[in-house]
Amino acid sequence: MSAPSLQIGLAGFGNVGAGVYKNIQKNSHLLLERSGRDLVVRRIAVRDPAKAREVKLPPELVTTNLDDLVLDPEIDMIIELIGGIDRAFAFVKAALENGKAVVTGNKALLAERGQELFAIAEEHGRPIYYEAAVAGGIPIIKTVQESLIGNHIQSVVGIINGTCNYILTRMTEANLRYEEALEEAQKLGYAEADPTLDVNGWDAAHKAIILASLSYGCWVPCDKIYVEGVESVRAEDIAFADKLGYTIKLLGVIKLHEESKAIEVRVQPSLVAKDHILSSVKGVFNAILVQGDVVGETLFYGSGAGQDPTSSSVIADIADAAANIDARDGSGFITHGLYGKPLPIEESVSKYYLRVEAEDRPGVLARIATVLGDHGIGILSLIQPEDHNEEYAPIVLMLHFAPFGRVREALKVIRAMDCIRDEPALLRVEDLG
Amino acid sequence: MSAPSLQIGLAGFGNVGAGVYKNIQKNSHLLLERSGRDLVVRRIAVRDPAKAREVKLPPELVTTNLDDLVLDPEIDMIIELIGGIDRAFAFVKAALENGKAVVTGNKALLAERGQELFAIAEEHGRPIYYEAAVAGGIPIIKTVQESLIGNHIQSVVGIINGTCNYILTRMTEANLRYEEALEEAQKLGYAEADPTLDVNGWDAAHKAIILASLSYGCWVPCDKIYVEGVESVRAEDIAFADKLGYTIKLLGVIKLHEESKAIEVRVQPSLVAKDHILSSVKGVFNAILVQGDVVGETLFYGSGAGQDPTSSSVIADIADAAANIDARDGSGFITHGLYGKPLPIEESVSKYYLRVEAEDRPGVLARIATVLGDHGIGILSLIQPEDHNEEYAPIVLMLHFAPFGRVREALKVIRAMDCIRDEPALLRVEDLG
Repeated sequence: MSAPSLQIGLAGFGNVGAGVYKNIQKNSHLLLERSGRDLVVRRIAVRDPAKAREVKLPPELVTTNLDDLVLDPEIDMIIELIGGIDRAFAFVKAALENGKAVVTGNKALLAERGQELFAIAEEHGRPIYYEAAVAGGIPIIKTVQESLIGNHIQSVVGIINGTCNYILTRMTEANLRYEEALEEAQKLGYAEADPTLDVNGWDAAHKAIILASLSYGCWVPCDKIYVEGVESVRAEDIAFADKLGYTIKLLGVIKLHEESKAIEVRVQPSLVAKDHILSSVKGVFNAILVQGDVVGETLFYGSGAGQDPTSSSVIADIADAAANIDARDGSGFITHGLYGKPLPIEESVSKYYLRVEAEDRPGVLARIATVLGDHGIGILSLIQPEDHNEEYAPIVLMLHFAPFGRVREALKVIRAMDCIRDEPALLRVEDLG
Repeated sequence: MSAPSLQIGLAGFGNVGAGVYKNIQKNSHLLLERSGRDLVVRRIAVRDPAKAREVKLPPELVTTNLDDLVLDPEIDMIIELIGGIDRAFAFVKAALENGKAVVTGNKALLAERGQELFAIAEEHGRPIYYEAAVAGGIPIIKTVQESLIGNHIQSVVGIINGTCNYILTRMTEANLRYEEALEEAQKLGYAEADPTLDVNGWDAAHKAIILASLSYGCWVPCDKIYVEGVESVRAEDIAFADKLGYTIKLLGVIKLHEESKAIEVRVQPSLVAKDHILSSVKGVFNAILVQGDVVGETLFYGSGAGQDPTSSSVIADIADAAANIDARDGSGFITHGLYGKPLPIEESVSKYYLRVEAEDRPGVLARIATVLGDHGIGILSLIQPEDHNEEYAPIVLMLHFAPFGRVREALKVIRAMDCIRDEPALLRVEDLG
């Protein structure tokens, strides 16, 4: 008796799509043994069949028309790896309406229009799987949804952009400037020719929105989250942070405020204590720290991008969808509106690292301290390097817990002082306990 | 309409059992919302109902007879947390035969008699879930079985005993001797009054056997795996390892040898490079590094023991069992005999750290090097501390890749030399790439 098969329509044969196809073939025997189903790629939709590709496109499966996947009654499941938002939305919607299960790795699509898509999925009783959309090969979606099902998620803090982590790692370990590290990342294929979405923090922000929806059942609109990238991180701040016992990492932070039920979601370069395990996450690796009320602290680490790691997650989703294909049950993978509203960034509280370039004369520090004091912001420690021979010198302050809005107000006053030169550098200090 | 319920029979109300009961009550609303089922603890079996307990035992649910759980037709699922082997085996077997799904956290039971139990489970089409049996709150079982389903597992390397990791961490960071660190661990409740099973490596070995069965579908018998604990780790070896750029960790290592299809399973104190993320795993935390052919390197970190973290895993298993309770399908959670036989420990290859106490006179080192050379073992580096004023002095050698059997042979010869005092210290150096 031959095993039952699962018929797959694969849309997109770029880096990840080709990896999915390649690895399903490579480990087909294993997948059959473990899942009890023969996973068959029945049709592949691409824009340009003639394009040169590293993984050979099987010509008999190719179409350029997404409808050939959606309307094929033999196809059980659609894998959406075409990227973009509007066309992908229309395609996924049509797939769900035609009774297909959907697997997608499209973080922008989910962050922008996930709420609509999950409503459509629920209406049609079909699931959407999206393990590959966050942190590549790390199974963070399944972990939060299934393994931590008995936990109230207290916070999720992640290094969820490999390009940024590579840049910061090289700035830290090889004393490179931002521009040098970025160039190196581009040469090695870790950053795209246009790296904007990575370095400005928005790729991480899309993932943070998905993690927030998963943890709290609340889709935070893109315009309600605070996002800073790594472009403005300066080599000297990395060096000062090092002296203070910290590493600088681009962190996505998702946190529930128990009393107000507000959800804090932000992406910012942040100081992490060197002896915290997140500090050991180097190069293009990703890691996500999840704090649950029952499990305590957990961390999940792996490759956050790349053809093979990401396809590992897509294949896991396919196997899950295969196991549940007859259930016609869209729930369990749809998040519900359990909790409240996004927290305004001004109200988010942390410690801070602040560097200002100030005139090197008596009284200047007192003036800065007075402004901070007037805003109710405590100073934890201070570095004033002695080895400089210029008129202006850096002052580095570690500030106590304070709302971000109040710190920004104080900074505005400090920036306007005649003894201050250049933009001050303000970074979060994440207290990871 | 009220939600469908799932009726649970809980056996054992010790540390973990009480945690499961407590946390199911605490987050019952959340569990109902997420799983769509009302998880009801219907009966609790304990040895001594009168015992004083931190979590109050609900008297109306209590029985001292395990049959009251097994034979109750209303009970859908049994949670086995009574510990031990023979009584637990009989109980789980009876539960499966009576059509119950089983959740267990009993690593010794599975390591010793898992093969029999899974055969019984398959025969009766009922599943056994065991997330809590390995690494407490870390969802390593589900991750390997589901999230990495598309991967050939190449190796699993884990810090899977929190007591040992606490002892080694304190020896490293506070320069304690083994006995001092153990005493501290006992005072803090991280080690039991009789710590034998933890410190001799067998608790980790049971977990390694389960991880091997999961990765390779092969139950390695307990007498075929090589186990060393932490009792013989000396403070001076931790200090020398530190000088050489390494931390000493008790590692469980599971590895497939591609060509011979032999499975290497061993537990030993091992040197891990300080810049590897496993080195950052401190105190009672556990972490498991999994290398898959598609996903690459991944790591999963969290509390490896304790009431709450372990009950988080039990509750996840309950929710999984609830979701599949009507499927009457035991597979997917039963491992099959995919691959071969255990690798004899003599054939396992690694680098090594070797310390010998030798007479401090010319020619001694040459004699040791000659013995190593005669056995085909290369020397990578050498430390001979100068600051000693005794007749005997330590010589620390880092040895190149060699089969363990051959290194032990050489060591026997070296040990018998008249210029050598005390037992030499031999530790693995794990090359984690």
